[in-house]
Amino acid sequence: MEVPVKPIEWLGDSVRIIDQRCLPDRECHLDLEDAGEVAGAIRDMALRGAPLIGIAAAMGVAVESRRWVSASWRDFSLRMEDAVQLLRSTRPTAGNLFWALERMKGVLAGFPEEAVPRACSDALVGEALKIYEEDLETGREMGRIGGDLIKEGFAVLTHCNAGGLATSGYGTALAPVYVARARGIGFRVYADETRPLLQGARLTAWELHNAGIDVTVICDSASHLLLSKGMVDLVLVGADRITVSGDFANKIGTLGVARSAAAAGVPFYVVAPTSTIDFALDRGEDIPIEEREASEVTVISGTRITPLDVPAYNPAFDVTPAELVTGFITEKGLVTQPFRANLSG
Amino acid sequence: MEVPVKPIEWLGDSVRIIDQRCLPDRECHLDLEDAGEVAGAIRDMALRGAPLIGIAAAMGVAVESRRWVSASWRDFSLRMEDAVQLLRSTRPTAGNLFWALERMKGVLAGFPEEAVPRACSDALVGEALKIYEEDLETGREMGRIGGDLIKEGFAVLTHCNAGGLATSGYGTALAPVYVARARGIGFRVYADETRPLLQGARLTAWELHNAGIDVTVICDSASHLLLSKGMVDLVLVGADRITVSGDFANKIGTLGVARSAAAAGVPFYVVAPTSTIDFALDRGEDIPIEEREASEVTVISGTRITPLDVPAYNPAFDVTPAELVTGFITEKGLVTQPFRANLSG
Repeated sequence: MEVPVKPIEWLGDSVRIIDQRCLPDRECHLDLEDAGEVAGAIRDMALRGAPLIGIAAAMGVAVESRRWVSASWRDFSLRMEDAVQLLRSTRPTAGNLFWALERMKGVLAGFPEEAVPRACSDALVGEALKIYEEDLETGREMGRIGGDLIKEGFAVLTHCNAGGLATSGYGTALAPVYVARARGIGFRVYADETRPLLQGARLTAWELHNAGIDVTVICDSASHLLLSKGMVDLVLVGADRITVSGDFANKIGTLGVARSAAAAGVPFYVVAPTSTIDFALDRGEDIPIEEREASEVTVISGTRITPLDVPAYNPAFDVTPAELVTGFITEKGLVTQPFRANLSG
Repeated sequence: MEVPVKPIEWLGDSVRIIDQRCLPDRECHLDLEDAGEVAGAIRDMALRGAPLIGIAAAMGVAVESRRWVSASWRDFSLRMEDAVQLLRSTRPTAGNLFWALERMKGVLAGFPEEAVPRACSDALVGEALKIYEEDLETGREMGRIGGDLIKEGFAVLTHCNAGGLATSGYGTALAPVYVARARGIGFRVYADETRPLLQGARLTAWELHNAGIDVTVICDSASHLLLSKGMVDLVLVGADRITVSGDFANKIGTLGVARSAAAAGVPFYVVAPTSTIDFALDRGEDIPIEEREASEVTVISGTRITPLDVPAYNPAFDVTPAELVTGFITEKGLVTQPFRANLSG
């Protein structure tokens, strides 16, 4: 199966990304040449999606390392530590960000004092590319496992964009959708538009439509009606952080979808690589939730929708309790209850 | 307590309304001079809100009757029947529309064959103004009853606009909010933005802010997080149609809010005049749900948010089952379970 979309590419001394803020109107690219530019792209959401944030952060360290290959080891290693620190501070919720940066730090720590910066940089680039390649394979594997859940005639509901654009190219929640399509299954997808930044309406609709998949956009608040009326057979969402208990954080609104799916008896699966599992966190309430600018709510496409002086509150994620989850699909297999035992297994 | 807002006024030979599509940027008015113009304003949502639709429809018949006072009785009565028919066809879900038009038909039916059109027209105008005045009194009464639920320090969540702009001026769900404010209670309101037409972000925020009430706008999908985290003490919503079982239709998304309120143990009240109760309907699945244009979803403030050729599904209402409702607040009092007995009482 061909990679549906290429949101990030390693160009040797820069990182090329699709600037997702231009979609679906235009497909435009940014070439990022140091860790600061990569951090800015993550923070300003030129790219987003937990796995892609992890890959980009790793490539951010790698591209920064390229700039200091002729420096002293001391300067090089300080610059690398600064880069890790800067990239770590971009978004607080995505588990893969910290996981990817830990891997990069591990590579750095594997070199002795007074090592050769160029050798370390090669190793850092290698590790970043390995994270990228592993994510592609992870997507294919989650797609194979999750694809079995999609039957002829199904309607699949998804929230936000956990697609190719959120990863190296196959997606998490959308990987099974691409696999089912490749297998010739006939089905449809409902995409929640996902306010405030409309990742569903803009990104999920764009990539599924480009792949020839029947996709219909709905307002976030309509998912409850569709679920209650039996119009949805399967819910697939991604995750930004999964705790060992099975509580997980994902884009704001996921909790409501999960509740309505449970009430309607519709299977609700979380599709995410094991790198999203945070073994240091036990319960959902331990996950830090990012609060973003009110202007993401109050201004749409440059037009203010609220009266001046009226504030908005803009939490970017919510936490869905484990009891509302039918199962987790990771690259290692399908994980069902009891999650506490099975997620660690 | 002063009327917070005047969304409709009877001018004698025209009906002046606030064109709510201009809010919150500008407060502009339309003068509607016949039933066709009133029907167009209802259909195109220059005005909206179940009680206000009922009032406008009644005034639509009344203003049309003014144009035919010199016609023969046969012409006059045929024109009146046409006007009722036209107004009835504007929106399928709002119970008050049919209820108000039945009252107007009742007035018409009370006149014998070959009556004097001018006398009948006077009676029709009188009935429309009575419906308007009754709605003002109904709002005051629901405000008094529901106002007792709002305590010092509370956070109240509301969905869509069930405010002064949805009625003759006090609102349904917001009437208790205005009364609590007048009583000097300190509290805050979270307003769901209410996609696709953003009645919460535009209208609820506008009228509450104008009244000096602390209002914060959130995305619809954020209500589940706020409820689950204990950030909301009380949910107040309006209704477009209530069945005798207590199932009720309201703006799309109400069902999800009700489910999350129930899960969090937060009281969920429906505030609506008894004219919203449809005694001919037993269960929620009997309520016809209006499906509106996809462009309401795909275009925001003139900007297309979805890729071209990707369709959208746009149901305007959903149905919340009675078991998720703590109580109904009508002008006659607070109605609790069992609703089937108590709503009819």
